[in-house]
Amino acid sequence: MEIDHVAIVVKDLNAALALYTGTLGFKEVYRETLAEQGIEAVGLDAGGCILELLRPLNENSPVARYRGDAETKLHHTAYRVADLQAELNRLKAAGVRLINDTPRRGAHGNLIAFLHPASAQGVLIELCQPSTEHP
Amino acid sequence: MEIDHVAIVVKDLNAALALYTGTLGFKEVYRETLAEQGIEAVGLDAGGCILELLRPLNENSPVARYRGDAETKLHHTAYRVADLQAELNRLKAAGVRLINDTPRRGAHGNLIAFLHPASAQGVLIELCQPSTEHP
Repeated sequence: MEIDHVAIVVKDLNAALALYTGTLGFKEVYRETLAEQGIEAVGLDAGGCILELLRPLNENSPVARYRGDAETKLHHTAYRVADLQAELNRLKAAGVRLINDTPRRGAHGNLIAFLHPASAQGVLIELCQPSTEHP
Repeated sequence: MEIDHVAIVVKDLNAALALYTGTLGFKEVYRETLAEQGIEAVGLDAGGCILELLRPLNENSPVARYRGDAETKLHHTAYRVADLQAELNRLKAAGVRLINDTPRRGAHGNLIAFLHPASAQGVLIELCQPSTEHP
């Protein structure tokens, strides 16, 4: 298992970028609006994985409510799998509760699916299958 | 900048390991008690970085209070730097508030230091310099 990305939900994307790309020196590798998920996602190169800043498009969305009054908050970790549908089938058969039992489209061309926090000890875990379009 | 590890504070280490090493298939690479920091840390191989489970030794410690009633909770992200003292000096000169302005000893032989959340938009950011004893 490998970490694909760590996602941080942010209130002010420019302020977050000032910290991560300005002060700390991360490099931006993609920026996308995912209307269906209600977020703008900015991916920063973090070595073998990505640090992803998520800005809710709507301040009443679940992601924004999770962040609450915080400027930024750790949101989820995503682990990379080679065959997402096969892994979802395996987990479901093992009794793991899933938010998505079929893959959906995420940022960076990835196929993604979330485990339900009830089966992940209260944290939000994403599994993702990398796009074939980028390494 | 690279992610060195993502740390999750847990209430029940065996239950957390059942999820991460049992269900999800991560492999344990180290397990240490850091009495000074009041935690037991278990590092799981997550590709180029580590997923670290932190069990507070004392249920009244700050780490345990941060977790609160949650079974597990994302605690911090750690970014790897080559020369930690130089990076701390650079950040301090740039006006970043630090919890540790000199490196301390962390798990896995790393030198570590935390930025203050007030300078990190509310999240806990660790910088760490890998041990020369492991790759």
